[in-house]
Amino acid sequence: MLHSIVSVQEPMMGILIATGDPFSTLCSFQHNNWKGTNMSKWMQEWSTEAVGPHNLKIEERRVPEIGDLDVLVRTTAVSLNYRDKLILESGMGLDLTFPFVPASDMSGVVEAVGKGVTRFRPGDRVISTFAPGWLDGLRPGNGRTPAYATLGGVHPGVLSEYVAFPEDWFVAAPKSLDAAEASTLPCAGLTAWFALIEKGHLKPGDRVVVQGTGGVALFGLQIAKAVGAEVIVTSSSREKLEKALALGAAHGINRLSEDWVERVYALTGDHGADHILEIAGGAGLGQSLKAVAPDGRISVIGVLEGFEVSGAVAPLLLKSPVLQGISVGHRRALEDLVGAVDRIGLKPVIDKRYKFTEAREALAHVDRGPFGKVVIEF
Amino acid sequence: MLHSIVSVQEPMMGILIATGDPFSTLCSFQHNNWKGTNMSKWMQEWSTEAVGPHNLKIEERRVPEIGDLDVLVRTTAVSLNYRDKLILESGMGLDLTFPFVPASDMSGVVEAVGKGVTRFRPGDRVISTFAPGWLDGLRPGNGRTPAYATLGGVHPGVLSEYVAFPEDWFVAAPKSLDAAEASTLPCAGLTAWFALIEKGHLKPGDRVVVQGTGGVALFGLQIAKAVGAEVIVTSSSREKLEKALALGAAHGINRLSEDWVERVYALTGDHGADHILEIAGGAGLGQSLKAVAPDGRISVIGVLEGFEVSGAVAPLLLKSPVLQGISVGHRRALEDLVGAVDRIGLKPVIDKRYKFTEAREALAHVDRGPFGKVVIEF
Amino acid sequence: MLHSIVSVQEPMMGILIATGDPFSTLCSFQHNNWKGTNMSKWMQEWSTEAVGPHNLKIEERRVPEIGDLDVLVRTTAVSLNYRDKLILESGMGLDLTFPFVPASDMSGVVEAVGKGVTRFRPGDRVISTFAPGWLDGLRPGNGRTPAYATLGGVHPGVLSEYVAFPEDWFVAAPKSLDAAEASTLPCAGLTAWFALIEKGHLKPGDRVVVQGTGGVALFGLQIAKAVGAEVIVTSSSREKLEKALALGAAHGINRLSEDWVERVYALTGDHGADHILEIAGGAGLGQSLKAVAPDGRISVIGVLEGFEVSGAVAPLLLKSPVLQGISVGHRRALEDLVGAVDRIGLKPVIDKRYKFTEAREALAHVDRGPFGKVVIEF
Amino acid sequence: MLHSIVSVQEPMMGILIATGDPFSTLCSFQHNNWKGTNMSKWMQEWSTEAVGPHNLKIEERRVPEIGDLDVLVRTTAVSLNYRDKLILESGMGLDLTFPFVPASDMSGVVEAVGKGVTRFRPGDRVISTFAPGWLDGLRPGNGRTPAYATLGGVHPGVLSEYVAFPEDWFVAAPKSLDAAEASTLPCAGLTAWFALIEKGHLKPGDRVVVQGTGGVALFGLQIAKAVGAEVIVTSSSREKLEKALALGAAHGINRLSEDWVERVYALTGDHGADHILEIAGGAGLGQSLKAVAPDGRISVIGVLEGFEVSGAVAPLLLKSPVLQGISVGHRRALEDLVGAVDRIGLKPVIDKRYKFTEAREALAHVDRGPFGKVVIEF
Repeated sequence: MLHSIVSVQEPMMGILIATGDPFSTLCSFQHNNWKGTNMSKWMQEWSTEAVGPHNLKIEERRVPEIGDLDVLVRTTAVSLNYRDKLILESGMGLDLTFPFVPASDMSGVVEAVGKGVTRFRPGDRVISTFAPGWLDGLRPGNGRTPAYATLGGVHPGVLSEYVAFPEDWFVAAPKSLDAAEASTLPCAGLTAWFALIEKGHLKPGDRVVVQGTGGVALFGLQIAKAVGAEVIVTSSSREKLEKALALGAAHGINRLSEDWVERVYALTGDHGADHILEIAGGAGLGQSLKAVAPDGRISVIGVLEGFEVSGAVAPLLLKSPVLQGISVGHRRALEDLVGAVDRIGLKPVIDKRYKFTEAREALAHVDRGPFGKVVIEF
Repeated sequence: MLHSIVSVQEPMMGILIATGDPFSTLCSFQHNNWKGTNMSKWMQEWSTEAVGPHNLKIEERRVPEIGDLDVLVRTTAVSLNYRDKLILESGMGLDLTFPFVPASDMSGVVEAVGKGVTRFRPGDRVISTFAPGWLDGLRPGNGRTPAYATLGGVHPGVLSEYVAFPEDWFVAAPKSLDAAEASTLPCAGLTAWFALIEKGHLKPGDRVVVQGTGGVALFGLQIAKAVGAEVIVTSSSREKLEKALALGAAHGINRLSEDWVERVYALTGDHGADHILEIAGGAGLGQSLKAVAPDGRISVIGVLEGFEVSGAVAPLLLKSPVLQGISVGHRRALEDLVGAVDRIGLKPVIDKRYKFTEAREALAHVDRGPFGKVVIEF
Repeated sequence: MLHSIVSVQEPMMGILIATGDPFSTLCSFQHNNWKGTNMSKWMQEWSTEAVGPHNLKIEERRVPEIGDLDVLVRTTAVSLNYRDKLILESGMGLDLTFPFVPASDMSGVVEAVGKGVTRFRPGDRVISTFAPGWLDGLRPGNGRTPAYATLGGVHPGVLSEYVAFPEDWFVAAPKSLDAAEASTLPCAGLTAWFALIEKGHLKPGDRVVVQGTGGVALFGLQIAKAVGAEVIVTSSSREKLEKALALGAAHGINRLSEDWVERVYALTGDHGADHILEIAGGAGLGQSLKAVAPDGRISVIGVLEGFEVSGAVAPLLLKSPVLQGISVGHRRALEDLVGAVDRIGLKPVIDKRYKFTEAREALAHVDRGPFGKVVIEF
Repeated sequence: MLHSIVSVQEPMMGILIATGDPFSTLCSFQHNNWKGTNMSKWMQEWSTEAVGPHNLKIEERRVPEIGDLDVLVRTTAVSLNYRDKLILESGMGLDLTFPFVPASDMSGVVEAVGKGVTRFRPGDRVISTFAPGWLDGLRPGNGRTPAYATLGGVHPGVLSEYVAFPEDWFVAAPKSLDAAEASTLPCAGLTAWFALIEKGHLKPGDRVVVQGTGGVALFGLQIAKAVGAEVIVTSSSREKLEKALALGAAHGINRLSEDWVERVYALTGDHGADHILEIAGGAGLGQSLKAVAPDGRISVIGVLEGFEVSGAVAPLLLKSPVLQGISVGHRRALEDLVGAVDRIGLKPVIDKRYKFTEAREALAHVDRGPFGKVVIEF
């Protein structure tokens, strides 16, 4: 059943994921409306009938009908995240609905709008939101079952020529980016922005450590640089460090040949890092606790692999840093990011652009660890 | 050498402790002034010549002279912390100066003031500050060497009939508390206040989990209750839980017979805890990450035992709680606490009051795990 | 046309009010659905065909039909605000749709739900939200045209036996309050909460000045008291001051016989007020700027009378208080308030309860300046 | 009496200024130490025996002695503020000590240090702090008598070849600025930084309105630009607007020929300004309330002329902006600014550099309204 919304309570990595949010039912009910009426138009869509990326194939399906509050969007680009690969491989504990369409981040052009739609008109360029129900302020969900209702997961994915979602699930695309660049904002861009700006209130002169050179990391580098921070990038690749320096990093630390904590001390006159984008996770957190400055901030960002994080309690107490997990962010912050991208001229780093038919190759690239983002253009 | 100030850089639990802060030298230089002039008056003081609590004994020493910016305070009560026991037993990696006088938290009456003193006059009732150099705002120290210059550690202790310190190291005592009660605020009281109020902005209706019934925990219970929060206390003692309920806790959870995380879900309708005073540390953090509400806060408070903290990354990411180590707090927050104590009528919980000569018995009580605080009255 | 939604751009007191928000159109389109199908049931409703409170009369109308995302609520109580009187008298510059149903704050019981509704079921006790479109985080609207789409204004009012609105416009009622008490939260209760707690982060021991003894003021008194603050109430009535003291105020200042600023200095040892609920407005702001403590906060709360606020710039600069206008608050904060009310046992102060047929008398009471709230019970 | 510290309680513009802060006495007592011992060295100093700038003249005086906690600094540059002119003309209600040495902002080189000094060594380049007693966190003073103990006011001024102050009154100078540039940070630079960054948490993409092109305004422009904000400058001079655009402003508005509020609406798509540096004061605040975005911020910055601020209450309520007076800032923020200046390469704008003997001409330039700062080089 295409596009239907699952409504399940499944364990995931030891915690339960809330899927019974209002949008599920709303969306489900509207999707029922889509079927049966508009039979005239066809589209291509990547989907799979079972867990395992080898099952992924292109299907011909009808363009969905829209409900009164929906918009129909013609996809122009889809940006892949490492998480897309994990879901295809393992399902990540989510009770997916098959055929399952992967991917969460897209840009597109509005083709049609329901009669109750007020925020968009046909022809508008839009991007998707990663966690549709979260508009602003506190996140949905509760202590037992955190919200994890995202596109390309509990909600349908976007690796399709057309998608039909409630208008609330979209945001106007930045004017200054092309379709491929715009598609990188909803997850990778927003995660870095939410950590550094919305939560971190980064300011000029702060010293920021960015771990790695993946999609979130390079957004972190660019956003921190844009705000006047001094950026230190760590990587195990000398070549990637050079490219990071070219992007504006003040310093690169080779994790293989250097003790990165000692280097951070040396580079900051023992001050430490005001903010660390902790992407490694696991026991690496202990190193970040050593490297952080008093009253600093560690944003834990990483794939959902069920890792333990651990570290010594002494620096946690004596330096009193804020340690916060960051799981993307809300729609208002994505709108802020879009505005900032246009006004500061930030250009997302795309390692390689693939064609719609090359989705498998694009996923393989994601698996190898790109420098920035991997995007599929339509 | 009595009251002299160490100035060292020693490793402690894998991290270095900054002791070379401005106050050390200032104090050191002033302490030199104390000697030699006022030879007329004698006092009693607990001190030790070596690590090991059995070495602790009462000595007769001269009342110290004061410098121009110092006040001489006659001690009226000393409140003990578990940390005092640890330092006596192991030194906690600090390069102590012997004879070493233990304890950090005291109340007293100003006997004399230096000619540059403006904040106090003889007869004023005062309490000490735990970390003298930290007046307001960000904490001193840097990433490599966090500040840990406290009384009864790098700075001299207070288990003495008289102390002479810079006026900046004291705060006016609350009017509504007796000497013993007032002496409990500088470390235990301020730690709970700093976590819940200064950093946590607790509000009416919030659900707060307090782990245990020690000094910080019961202050946490009382402060959270005072602000209109619903307090859940965990303990392994049925008797202590009953006493906590009598103090205003809404619920008690017996850690031995119940799964406290499940109980928190049940008591909050799955919402989880808005704030957890995490005192256990170690792997207990993982449980707190399960119990916390989305956008909640976990304040890690605990003795400096070099414990690892650890927990699953999934709830850290998906619920995005703030996790922050709390190491006491600054003087301005202590002044706020003093004002609050007077205006809301908060009475610290003292498990038992000991005489000056019973310091060993008092320390042994601390070791057994009191319900609230253990205080020595002078 | 009953319940239709205006969509206008009208000047109001020199600024424009945004009414073209998404909800207007959505609601309008759904209301069209209500008509024509459910003709079987009748209800009574206060409405007017023209500005002027004398035009207000009870009409018999059909119970509205609900759309897929709506709930039908049987009203159990309506709480009046001074603003309701102003709108009836002058329209307040809003382009109202006639027949116009007044009032914004209600409690009720869900009678029926649309098929897309997930948050409520028939039988649930609910209260309305004052500004339906504002769920959490930043307020809607823009610099030129602030959002002012409220019930009993641009949106339909609630002085009716039944209302049918989108489920998003309601919040679960507190369990501990009766219908009349619950109806006072959406505007008066939330305004005080938003100022003191959501924005003000009030803490135990803070000194709060509450001006007057109207609905917002008494909620301010009770909420500030609940959080452990010391509350100072100002009034021109000795009798009302005595009642305020009985409610928990620490001090009452008679504005007619005392200089309230000097009294605040005297009562706080010259500290000043940490937070002032500025309800008078106008030149009174200058007095509040004198009375406020350094780094304090003045929440300007008042009816929309186009008043100028003014005050001397010197205390504004030298004490650097935050001065913020508060116009009710978002739904999430209302949910926080409901939770707090249940957990701390706060009972709203109702000066008098009227019957449905006594709406004119109730409005006249509002005009005379009640002690707390005036409520109409159904 | 040179350099002695007044200790008075005088009315100023309707409010009282606290001068009895701890530092006064401390400093006074130390200054007594300076006299009598070091008679060997002479210096030149601008001072006046009475209010009125025509009384200002160069005197030959002994280089002051330093106390144990003081540093002796050889002045290399002094930056003038409009406030210096006002104090010379009227005394601004402050009970000045004559001979009075004007000016608060300087850079210099440490010549000698007292034996208790730990933060500086001879040869260090330093800058002064404007309000010496305020190290971090909340400002000193109380509601009745705000703190206004600044250099060149209640404390001695710096228009002198040497100054001797406690080490706490200085901050390390930025490495990337020359002496004249560095001298502009303590008041003008810090005011803009404190408003936009410390309090305002400005972020990339925010729209900032800066009123005018004086010293604070141009720092505001440069800091906002550095953080990725879009800066709109208003001025009555076409020539100055062109220079502001060259400095990085996105837009200039000529206040004489344009309605600046309407232009801000037009430039921001009706969004309004996220932050306004309100320097005009007075009734201009009403315009800023119109121009500000919902949930925006207006920082009121201006000379202490006893102006009333005023504005309509409707936008204050409906847009709920934060309005905050900003009176320079604390030492920790100045240290943050120094770090930022070095790391982002910010170069203060100096309209003209004068020689030590040209102090009168420099003050006259300040009176005419410079583009940026006026500095006296030694």
